[in-house]
Amino acid sequence: MSSFNGTERKPDRLEAFSDAVFAIAITLPVVELHAPQPEEGDLAAGYMKLAPEYAAYALSVILIGLYWAHSHFSGKLLQKTDHGYNLLSIGFLAAVSITPFPARPLVEHLAGDPESRTAALVYLGVAAAPATWWFARWLFATARALPDPRLTDAYLRRLTIKYGVTAGAFWAAFILAFWGWQAALVAAGFVTLSYVVPPAEPAYKPGL
Amino acid sequence: MSSFNGTERKPDRLEAFSDAVFAIAITLPVVELHAPQPEEGDLAAGYMKLAPEYAAYALSVILIGLYWAHSHFSGKLLQKTDHGYNLLSIGFLAAVSITPFPARPLVEHLAGDPESRTAALVYLGVAAAPATWWFARWLFATARALPDPRLTDAYLRRLTIKYGVTAGAFWAAFILAFWGWQAALVAAGFVTLSYVVPPAEPAYKPGL
Amino acid sequence: MSSFNGTERKPDRLEAFSDAVFAIAITLPVVELHAPQPEEGDLAAGYMKLAPEYAAYALSVILIGLYWAHSHFSGKLLQKTDHGYNLLSIGFLAAVSITPFPARPLVEHLAGDPESRTAALVYLGVAAAPATWWFARWLFATARALPDPRLTDAYLRRLTIKYGVTAGAFWAAFILAFWGWQAALVAAGFVTLSYVVPPAEPAYKPGL
Amino acid sequence: MSSFNGTERKPDRLEAFSDAVFAIAITLPVVELHAPQPEEGDLAAGYMKLAPEYAAYALSVILIGLYWAHSHFSGKLLQKTDHGYNLLSIGFLAAVSITPFPARPLVEHLAGDPESRTAALVYLGVAAAPATWWFARWLFATARALPDPRLTDAYLRRLTIKYGVTAGAFWAAFILAFWGWQAALVAAGFVTLSYVVPPAEPAYKPGL
Repeated sequence: MSSFNGTERKPDRLEAFSDAVFAIAITLPVVELHAPQPEEGDLAAGYMKLAPEYAAYALSVILIGLYWAHSHFSGKLLQKTDHGYNLLSIGFLAAVSITPFPARPLVEHLAGDPESRTAALVYLGVAAAPATWWFARWLFATARALPDPRLTDAYLRRLTIKYGVTAGAFWAAFILAFWGWQAALVAAGFVTLSYVVPPAEPAYKPGL
Repeated sequence: MSSFNGTERKPDRLEAFSDAVFAIAITLPVVELHAPQPEEGDLAAGYMKLAPEYAAYALSVILIGLYWAHSHFSGKLLQKTDHGYNLLSIGFLAAVSITPFPARPLVEHLAGDPESRTAALVYLGVAAAPATWWFARWLFATARALPDPRLTDAYLRRLTIKYGVTAGAFWAAFILAFWGWQAALVAAGFVTLSYVVPPAEPAYKPGL
Repeated sequence: MSSFNGTERKPDRLEAFSDAVFAIAITLPVVELHAPQPEEGDLAAGYMKLAPEYAAYALSVILIGLYWAHSHFSGKLLQKTDHGYNLLSIGFLAAVSITPFPARPLVEHLAGDPESRTAALVYLGVAAAPATWWFARWLFATARALPDPRLTDAYLRRLTIKYGVTAGAFWAAFILAFWGWQAALVAAGFVTLSYVVPPAEPAYKPGL
Repeated sequence: MSSFNGTERKPDRLEAFSDAVFAIAITLPVVELHAPQPEEGDLAAGYMKLAPEYAAYALSVILIGLYWAHSHFSGKLLQKTDHGYNLLSIGFLAAVSITPFPARPLVEHLAGDPESRTAALVYLGVAAAPATWWFARWLFATARALPDPRLTDAYLRRLTIKYGVTAGAFWAAFILAFWGWQAALVAAGFVTLSYVVPPAEPAYKPGL
């Protein structure tokens, strides 16, 4: 272990901590789900009325789940972590953990009413935060040579561009929402769902 | 690590994440349990009145616990995971996490009343979802050659049939519940409890 | 991995799952803690009134914490786990997870009132459950030869007696509570706190 | 594994448990966050009114996050853990887990009112607890020779002083708060934020 300097460690413990926070963040919105109360008569109607809760839960699971899947992938790319990377990871994880929070108002106002724009703005702002932390953390990691040294520079640069574009797209959607909240949500949805596509195969330097 | 292509990794990190989600999903229903309030006089009566809450908790623990035990077992069968498998795992875990949610109304209406059929239908539909995700994930895993290559084809096929039959049985119970909700619940209970039996010994190819 | 039969695996994955459930069970009672509400005037009085909540939290942390510490120790003694051991672990963990639940009423009625006996009986019954599951799981483990084969039979027997006595003592305290709930709580407290003492050094067979 | 005596084990399992508790403790305050209710008209005003909740959440994330980052670092310094260290870890983790609890009243009374001193006193007392447990645990670890034996005595002593000063500073801030709660909070804030600086590089004995 002493081959790493200072606060540097293999990424496995940070990954374990991240995975635990992700696991809680993705499961905690279940607490917001309610069953129809016994005193209400019509159970089917009771479940129907709760539909926005389920939709908000599904939205949160998709967003956090995609972040986890890419976090899982990017863990393969790091050789080590250090104190600064850990602190940026805390920021990222805290930002991810609160994304379920404005999902409910968003779903409530999705049909279009005077509050729809506000609901979309808050959601997009909150959703842009983890993308921004992620990008900042990646810039820090490459500046501190934390990734696997066998990865090619071109591959690292490609990821830098990808993460920068993602964060930028979320903020662009946020600004766009002042004029057209529906278009902004569609744009942010496209960016998010683009992460369903598997990330590009890591490129290693020849002869290693 | 570079012996795996693209997003492929050893299953250990996904297992750690899954275990954490399972741990939260199985513990979170505790939040729904209440102690009798101080202002209520009779403590014993207060605890009795909460009996459906405990029954719903026990039901959730059994269902999630059996899924975990088999998830634990199936982790032994995989050689690697990839991006698609991870995404299907997110779906499966989200589906498992919400199974405690319709357990309370089910227990409330178990004695038989005009809402019993609805309560049973919702419960069976929600319980069929993780079985379906599990089956889909297994089909994906075998199609992508993720299981340990030393396992025999016959063994893999046997599991495919087992998981397909389980998912099918849950949906059959769901449909059956339109006519007889008691019979449907008994059938689903039998399928679930069949997983108390240890899974069949993995069969490895000779000479390996 | 194929050196283990059927569902047998090294204990590390079960330990990870157990640790996660313990971590949640020990942290979840925090949700029951409240801060004084802003609308209440006197903050100091508001915090004082919440004292029983903190006492109940402390009680839960001590009980679950000691179980975790011994679970951590006993993980060192196992060579492998199997399906039956996993299922018994689920039962044990679910039983541990609900011990915080009757702690609040116990603390409320500790000063002595007509409900004190009921509060003590419920608490002792709920606290006896994990001790009983633990004992049952240990009997199963020794019957199935899951412990490290290098441990001496005398050492294993010693633990069998210890765990049996603990479970028996909790049930004895439960029965005693019908006549004297204070004495029963003191007795159960002594049994619990005896686990603060480090467990006996494992004895290994000579020449191994 | 038998190279460790009695309850001694490698630190990895305790680290996994600690990480899980940290992960829950840092994520659980999300449960306290609310979305504006659908029945309230003005969504933007609704979100604004919740600002103290977010501030309290941010405060909790910073405090727990910094503890985690240093816990992560100190795990690198230990060679083993034992029963006593585990029990002290439970105390530390329980103390960390309740730090979010008085954050909300603190934020509510930060503008200055007759309750501000009480809010600051409670917060500082609760925040001093984990620092004290941490220091006690470190003293225990060094007394029992749990750290990596290759670390120099000077380095261990340096950490002893650092942790002692931190705990002392929190209690000093607590006492100071009787006279000047603002100054006390600023002082405690400085001590906390000093942990943003990476810990000193571990010094190993020469020739090892």
